[in-house]
Amino acid sequence: MDSDTFRKLGHELVDWVADYRDRVEGLPVMSRVRPGEIRARLPSEPPLQGGRLPEAIAALDPVLLPGITHWTHPSFFAYFPSNTSRASILADLVCAGLGVQGMSWQTSPAATELEEVVIDWLRQMVGLPDAFTGVIHDTASTSTLTALLCARERTGGFCQNREGLQGGEPPLVVYASDQGHSSIEKDVLLAGFGKRHLRIVPTDRAHAMRVDALGEAVEADLAAGLRPCAVVATVGTTGTTALDPVAAIAGMARRHALWLHVDAALAGTAMVVPEYRWMWRGIEEADSIVFNPHKWMGPGFDLSAYFVRDPQHLVRVMSTNPSYLRTAQDGEVRNLRDWGIPLGRRFRALKLWFHLLDEGVEGMRARVRRDVENARWFADRVDGTAGWERLAPVPLQTVTFRHVPEGFSDEAAIAAHNLDISRRVNEGGRAYLTPSLLKGRQTLRVSIGAETTERRHVEALWQELQEAARAGRG
Amino acid sequence: MDSDTFRKLGHELVDWVADYRDRVEGLPVMSRVRPGEIRARLPSEPPLQGGRLPEAIAALDPVLLPGITHWTHPSFFAYFPSNTSRASILADLVCAGLGVQGMSWQTSPAATELEEVVIDWLRQMVGLPDAFTGVIHDTASTSTLTALLCARERTGGFCQNREGLQGGEPPLVVYASDQGHSSIEKDVLLAGFGKRHLRIVPTDRAHAMRVDALGEAVEADLAAGLRPCAVVATVGTTGTTALDPVAAIAGMARRHALWLHVDAALAGTAMVVPEYRWMWRGIEEADSIVFNPHKWMGPGFDLSAYFVRDPQHLVRVMSTNPSYLRTAQDGEVRNLRDWGIPLGRRFRALKLWFHLLDEGVEGMRARVRRDVENARWFADRVDGTAGWERLAPVPLQTVTFRHVPEGFSDEAAIAAHNLDISRRVNEGGRAYLTPSLLKGRQTLRVSIGAETTERRHVEALWQELQEAARAGRG
Repeated sequence: MDSDTFRKLGHELVDWVADYRDRVEGLPVMSRVRPGEIRARLPSEPPLQGGRLPEAIAALDPVLLPGITHWTHPSFFAYFPSNTSRASILADLVCAGLGVQGMSWQTSPAATELEEVVIDWLRQMVGLPDAFTGVIHDTASTSTLTALLCARERTGGFCQNREGLQGGEPPLVVYASDQGHSSIEKDVLLAGFGKRHLRIVPTDRAHAMRVDALGEAVEADLAAGLRPCAVVATVGTTGTTALDPVAAIAGMARRHALWLHVDAALAGTAMVVPEYRWMWRGIEEADSIVFNPHKWMGPGFDLSAYFVRDPQHLVRVMSTNPSYLRTAQDGEVRNLRDWGIPLGRRFRALKLWFHLLDEGVEGMRARVRRDVENARWFADRVDGTAGWERLAPVPLQTVTFRHVPEGFSDEAAIAAHNLDISRRVNEGGRAYLTPSLLKGRQTLRVSIGAETTERRHVEALWQELQEAARAGRG
Repeated sequence: MDSDTFRKLGHELVDWVADYRDRVEGLPVMSRVRPGEIRARLPSEPPLQGGRLPEAIAALDPVLLPGITHWTHPSFFAYFPSNTSRASILADLVCAGLGVQGMSWQTSPAATELEEVVIDWLRQMVGLPDAFTGVIHDTASTSTLTALLCARERTGGFCQNREGLQGGEPPLVVYASDQGHSSIEKDVLLAGFGKRHLRIVPTDRAHAMRVDALGEAVEADLAAGLRPCAVVATVGTTGTTALDPVAAIAGMARRHALWLHVDAALAGTAMVVPEYRWMWRGIEEADSIVFNPHKWMGPGFDLSAYFVRDPQHLVRVMSTNPSYLRTAQDGEVRNLRDWGIPLGRRFRALKLWFHLLDEGVEGMRARVRRDVENARWFADRVDGTAGWERLAPVPLQTVTFRHVPEGFSDEAAIAAHNLDISRRVNEGGRAYLTPSLLKGRQTLRVSIGAETTERRHVEALWQELQEAARAGRG
C-alpha cells in the first residue's frame, strides 16, 4: 500500500471509528448472531492476489459489526468495564504506526523510558509508596502468574536454576479466597504447584477472606510438612467487589514468610480517589500488586499494571541473556524483556500517556465517583423495592442481587427466574449484564463504569429489569 | 474527548504516521539517545487537570522520535525483521476503535470467528495439513511456554489437577539444541521443569540439532530413571536460521512419546513459498508449531500463530469455567480464553485480515523470495571478498559472518574488531545490525526482510561494513 492510499483509507477509518462511537448507543449491546454466522460470511480460503483491502473495509458494517458485543456501549453492565478512551485509540494508531518492539532499551529507548515515567505516574495516582516499581503486562492473569512464579522461586531458594519443582522438596502451597478470580487457580496449575496445593480459604458474610481461616490453613499445612508459599488477596473480587483485609493478611504473610500478591484488577483504578484508599489498607506490605487500567480507567485493552517491591527479584526470575540480546547499555538501563514472560513488547505506554494527559487525574476521579454513586443509587433501588434482594455490600461499582417473587422459596425456581431475567435483558439489546453464582445462589450482577454510562442509563436498566421480572412471572 | 476533536486529531495523526513512514529512511536507524535522556524530558508527576493531549502530540517529533529505533527502516538488519504493514496499522486503528475483548465467543462473536477464519488461511498458506488448528498468541515465548505446559500435562497424565510437578514423580526432561532460542530455557524454568532437566543437544556444522545426540540424551535419561517429556525443534534458529531436521526428530519423538514442538518463529513465513517447504519436512508430525507473522510477514507486533494437532488437549490444560464466564453458547463455540494463558484477548485477527487482503499470498511470496535473494547476494559478497568469512549456511534471509583482517589470528582480537565494526555501523545511523556469538566466535549478523528493504539497501550495507572494517584496522 502506498502512502497516499494509507492517508485516504486512514482518514476514512478515523471517521468510521468516530461514527461508530457516536452511534454505538443505538446498537444492541450484546451481539445477536448465532454461532458460525460470521464465519459463514467470510471466504474459507486466503486471497491469492492482493489489493483487496477495500473489501474488508466495506465489510466492517454489514459483516463484522453484527458480530460485535459493544463494550463501549453506555449500557454495558457485564463483567467489569473495559474502557477505551478516544485518546487511547489515537495512541494505538501511533503505536502501530511506529511499529517498534521494546524488548530491550536499545530497540527503542523511548518505549522503555516512557513506560518508566507513566507507570510511575500511575503509582503516585493510586497512592503507592515509592518503594514500588511498575511494569506493564497484558492482563491480570499474566501478572498473577508472574507473581506466583516469583513466589515459587523465592520460597524454593531460586530452585529454578536447579531442580524446578522436581527436586522432591516439600510441596509449596498457595492460598486464595473462595471469591478469588479464576485466573488464580489457572495460574497455580500453570506454575506447576498442582491443584492439591491450592487452598481455597472461606470468606465471611461480606465475601472477604477470613484471616482466621487463612491462619488455620497455614498451620495445618505446616503441621503436614508442606511449605506455605504465597497468598493472593483480592481487593474487589469479580463476583461482588468484596475487599479482602489486606493489612491482616499482610500480618499473616509476614509471620509465615508468604509472598503477598494483591489482585486489585478492577479496584486499583478507584484508588485514584484518596477517600477510597482505606479499601486496600496495608497495601504497602504487598510483594506484588496488579491492577488493570484497561478495565475502568480508560486506556484500551490490554494494559495491566504490575508493581513489585523488589524488581531485582523479578528480573532474576524472568531474565535471559543470550549473546544476540546483549547491548552496550546493559547494566545502565532497564531491559523490559526481563520484567515479564514474553520477549517482545508493544509500546503500550503510549496509551497511558495519551489517556492521562487527556483526562487528567481529576477527570478520572470524577468518573470513578460518578460510577460509585450510580452503583449506590442502583443498590438503593434494589434495597427499597419489594421482591428484590441485594446479596453483597457495594463498596465500588458492582451490585450483586436477585429477584425473588412473592411465594418463591425453591432455590432452583429462583435461579431459573433470574437466569430468565438476564436472558430477557441481554437479548432485548438495550443492556447487557452478567448472571453469576454466589456461594451457590444464582445472582444478577450489574457492573457500572463504561466511560459514557450516565445515571439515565442506570435508571433505564432498572426499568428493564423490573419489566423482565414481571414478564418472567407472567 | 468529544467526537469532533477525535476526528481532527485522528486525521492529524494518520498524516503524522504517513509522514513518518515516508521519511523514516532519512532517520538514523538506531536511536542515539543516552540512557535517561527521554525520561528527563518528561514530567515526573501525572497531570492533575486534563485537556493536555495536544502537548503529547506536539512532543512526538522533538521528544519521542529521537528515542525510537526504527524497525520499519529499510536498513534495519538487526534481530529478525518485525514488519508492520500500512494495512496492519489501519487494522489496529479499527481494533482500538471497536475496543472489544474476545475472551469468550459471546463477548464478541466476530473476534472469535474472524480469528478462526484467518488463522486457517495461514494454515493453508504455509502448507500445514487440516489436522492442525490455530490460535493467535502474543509472542513465540508465550506459545512455546504453552506447548511445554501441554507437554508437561500429557506426560504427567494431567497431574496439574492433582499434584502439579510436586508429586514426587520421576522428573520430566525437555530437549532443545544449543542454537534454540533463549525463550526455550526461560519457558522450561517458568514451567517448573528446572534447568537441571533441560538437555542442550549439540548441533552439527550447519548448526542443526544432531539427532544422534538427541537419541543418546534420551537414552541416558531413561537409564537414569527420568522421564523424557518434550523436544523443541527449531526451524530457522535465531543465530543463523539453521534448520533442525524435523522429520528425524519426529521419529525420535514418536519412539519415546515426546511432545514435539516446532519453533519456526521466523521461518514459518517463508513456508508461503512452496519450494521452501522442504525446510520443515516432517512438520505434520509436530504436536505444536509456532511461527510469528509479526516478524517477516507484515501484520504488526504482536501476532504469533500457534498451531496444535489436538485442540482438546490444549483446552484441557488452559480452560477455566467460573460461573461469571459461562454463556448460553458454551459447547457450541470456541471460547478462546481457553486456548492460551491470558483471560482477556485483543481482536488481533483484524491485522491479519487487513494485511492478507491487501498483500495477497502472491505478494507475500514475492517479498519472501526477494529477501532470500538479497541474502544470497550478500552471502556471495562475503564469500568472494578476501578477509570476510561466512560462518553458517544461508537457507533464508540471515547471514552470519565476520571479518578477519590479514594477520589476525587471536580470537579476542578478531572479536574486538568485529564488535568495533558493528558499533561503527550502528552508531553511524545508516544501518543497524546485531553482533552475536556463535559457538564462542564473535559474529556479525545481518537479517534481511524489512518490508521496504531493496537490493540497494543491502548494497549500501555491504559498503558500510567494508568501510567500517577498514576504519577499524586503521
